[in-house]
Amino acid sequence: MSTESLPAADVFARGCPSRPVLQNITGRWGVLILAALVDDAHRFAELHRRVDGVSERMLSQTLRTLERDGLVHRAVLGTVPPHVEYSLTDLGRRITAPLLGLVEVVEGSIPEIVAAQRDYDRSH
Amino acid sequence: MSTESLPAADVFARGCPSRPVLQNITGRWGVLILAALVDDAHRFAELHRRVDGVSERMLSQTLRTLERDGLVHRAVLGTVPPHVEYSLTDLGRRITAPLLGLVEVVEGSIPEIVAAQRDYDRSH
Repeated sequence: MSTESLPAADVFARGCPSRPVLQNITGRWGVLILAALVDDAHRFAELHRRVDGVSERMLSQTLRTLERDGLVHRAVLGTVPPHVEYSLTDLGRRITAPLLGLVEVVEGSIPEIVAAQRDYDRSH
Repeated sequence: MSTESLPAADVFARGCPSRPVLQNITGRWGVLILAALVDDAHRFAELHRRVDGVSERMLSQTLRTLERDGLVHRAVLGTVPPHVEYSLTDLGRRITAPLLGLVEVVEGSIPEIVAAQRDYDRSH
């Protein structure tokens, strides 16, 4: 399949296909699901426990989107009963690396951010 | 102000304050506005041009959220007429670095992602 005719991606351009992909990755549950898959493959129920607060519907919808974008691999295991296991693809791993960096910086900056929010709320 | 009593942030925990902050940063316009401010400070109209497709309302709302989180600094310049200029704070710069890494990987992976989407759509 030829994909070489695609123009260079530019997230600043309104119609660029990188924009919806970025939204899938950074959406409410995308970040957390990708981050949860970094260490290991997981079954649906494990992901549901790990990503605290996600509904089964949103989890399965987000997993489908990430699978469609080629970031997550869905494997049906030949066990009895059959189990479905989700893992990161190589592409998913490349994309999740900077995402984990972002999560780490945000988690480490929460005291500073909460202080900024208090200052802002006092003066507005 | 004491912020030392905050528990360690964990985005996987439902009530953690890092979750809404992560959403502000990675929301539909947050990523693009932060990325647009990396090179230089910008006035509102410049940001509006650069972030193609954002409405004035969403731009000003997102800038206020990022200012409240301590990532963006809003300066009223003493010109006649007065101008408002937005720039990244040090914290904003630390958080935008991995975000730019993410944007670069996504932009560079678009051909691979579009191919994955086509494969998926053919088989589902």
